[in-house]
Amino acid sequence: MAYVDVKNREKAIKMIENRGVTIEEIANVTLLIQKEYIPELTLEDCVENILKVLEKTEVQNVIFTGLALDMLCEQNLLPDPLDKMVKSDYSLYGVDEILALGIVNVYGSIGFTNFGYVDKVKIGVIKTVDEMGKNTDKCMTFMDDIIGGLAAAAASRIAHNRYGKIIGK
Amino acid sequence: MAYVDVKNREKAIKMIENRGVTIEEIANVTLLIQKEYIPELTLEDCVENILKVLEKTEVQNVIFTGLALDMLCEQNLLPDPLDKMVKSDYSLYGVDEILALGIVNVYGSIGFTNFGYVDKVKIGVIKTVDEMGKNTDKCMTFMDDIIGGLAAAAASRIAHNRYGKIIGK
Amino acid sequence: MAYVDVKNREKAIKMIENRGVTIEEIANVTLLIQKEYIPELTLEDCVENILKVLEKTEVQNVIFTGLALDMLCEQNLLPDPLDKMVKSDYSLYGVDEILALGIVNVYGSIGFTNFGYVDKVKIGVIKTVDEMGKNTDKCMTFMDDIIGGLAAAAASRIAHNRYGKIIGK
Amino acid sequence: MAYVDVKNREKAIKMIENRGVTIEEIANVTLLIQKEYIPELTLEDCVENILKVLEKTEVQNVIFTGLALDMLCEQNLLPDPLDKMVKSDYSLYGVDEILALGIVNVYGSIGFTNFGYVDKVKIGVIKTVDEMGKNTDKCMTFMDDIIGGLAAAAASRIAHNRYGKIIGK
Repeated sequence: MAYVDVKNREKAIKMIENRGVTIEEIANVTLLIQKEYIPELTLEDCVENILKVLEKTEVQNVIFTGLALDMLCEQNLLPDPLDKMVKSDYSLYGVDEILALGIVNVYGSIGFTNFGYVDKVKIGVIKTVDEMGKNTDKCMTFMDDIIGGLAAAAASRIAHNRYGKIIGK
Repeated sequence: MAYVDVKNREKAIKMIENRGVTIEEIANVTLLIQKEYIPELTLEDCVENILKVLEKTEVQNVIFTGLALDMLCEQNLLPDPLDKMVKSDYSLYGVDEILALGIVNVYGSIGFTNFGYVDKVKIGVIKTVDEMGKNTDKCMTFMDDIIGGLAAAAASRIAHNRYGKIIGK
Repeated sequence: MAYVDVKNREKAIKMIENRGVTIEEIANVTLLIQKEYIPELTLEDCVENILKVLEKTEVQNVIFTGLALDMLCEQNLLPDPLDKMVKSDYSLYGVDEILALGIVNVYGSIGFTNFGYVDKVKIGVIKTVDEMGKNTDKCMTFMDDIIGGLAAAAASRIAHNRYGKIIGK
Repeated sequence: MAYVDVKNREKAIKMIENRGVTIEEIANVTLLIQKEYIPELTLEDCVENILKVLEKTEVQNVIFTGLALDMLCEQNLLPDPLDKMVKSDYSLYGVDEILALGIVNVYGSIGFTNFGYVDKVKIGVIKTVDEMGKNTDKCMTFMDDIIGGLAAAAASRIAHNRYGKIIGK
């Protein structure tokens, strides 16, 4: 697979961690949604799959863009009326979902379902950041959809590996 | 809004009903997911919104295509290997989700979340048709995603109407 | 149609004009791609359709987000490595296309073709802004895809109006 | 990469060839659109990339579904009103484009532009099949978008390989 970038993956991981979320927490969302289908799945397996998803430049670029918007929002640098919508995680804003779908799409349409589910039910760390965004000065508008997108993409990757016919590379 | 077609809407409704699902059942899925946010929402409101969603030619065309594939599958007219994947509602077959996203997209990205949620949790009639597909000769592979897409699109429409700034028509 | 916002439409138009592009120039792209199918189509028709497309909140939100990123880039406020990719309109960045598809999708999948075409061939004002982005300090990375998305969406709207069965509003 | 299936790739290739199109003809579309950027690109390179794209199960599933619809249309087995729309390659049908985007998306959003371009300009074999669909009893409604999707996806893969930072696999 040629469109991977390990250097930019490290930058993406660093950016996510600087915003207060660990790769393990994201992987745990994947574990929570896949465990009923694959009981022997471990957190380590999920971390490994999140790291593979994070190798993709498409995925990294969505992370760089979305987290930049969250950070610039906190610094009051977004122009009106974008500012108000991102600050309040306005439910009719939708651009955060458009970006997250960009992550999910890399692993195929089978990920749409998982993305929607974790986003609505606010599983694990998604709940944490969603509350952080509502109750503190932190802006987590793009972060929570990015986490959902990563978790769903990793779940798709695991499903493909598990159930798909694995022939060739 | 010019791309509506009331005649084809009647055809789409008839096709859905002939496949064993009522508009009320689909509207009830919308009610189940929206009621926590809008307690005074009624089943009638939801039916009205499903009917508005069904006016869109984009939506109708997905319904005509998906339900045709379900019916042709039951008649053993789909070629190999499509036949096996549609018959078994193979989880890595994803084209049913791609089509359903075509319905959801007409009302914007805010619908992605609801679509994924109802599809995974199998709310209301989605559960009914999913079991019908697994336990009988009926093929409901495209139908269940179509129901989810319609219910999510109607939920988006209600949200836009409710929370968006309503100016103009 | 309930999810329109005329006040935010004025803000979106103002933002586009402040960035150096007029609604007429965008409408002219639509005219250039539709004229071979509809010879009697006028620039005024196209302007009217661009204005209708701009009423949609989904469309406005993409514009607010994309143009904010262009402006913040010019002010050197985007973090690394987003900064370099947006400044150079890096061909493998792709988030600008993801956002523009968000505009096109509102009018259905028939717009994908027109969007890709105007984006590759760089028709009319798209060529102007693309060169401005390459040869000056201005950043037009998101602007050129936004123009393409608006022009393609308006072309879809015209096609639906023209060739679709027009019943109801 | 785990979600490849070499056996189903052979089935997909066979299905495309049985419908009257060769892999070389599709690869030639990729060559035509990439040659201005990569003068040393050969038809062989493009064939190799089309074959890699065809390994993906997401891509295969779109091909199996779309070409089945074309074939069933020729056999007059599609129900009304789907039948008329697919037979006439109705410009407002759009589901063929939705499916083709499913192919393009696997290689990221940078492919949207190429897909739209080849679909509108009708390059190479796309022109051939488009005319076949219009002037004979053959139905090429899904085929022409599938060709465009494959050609654009291969062009994306080549671009990623060429210009992206190639580290790791």
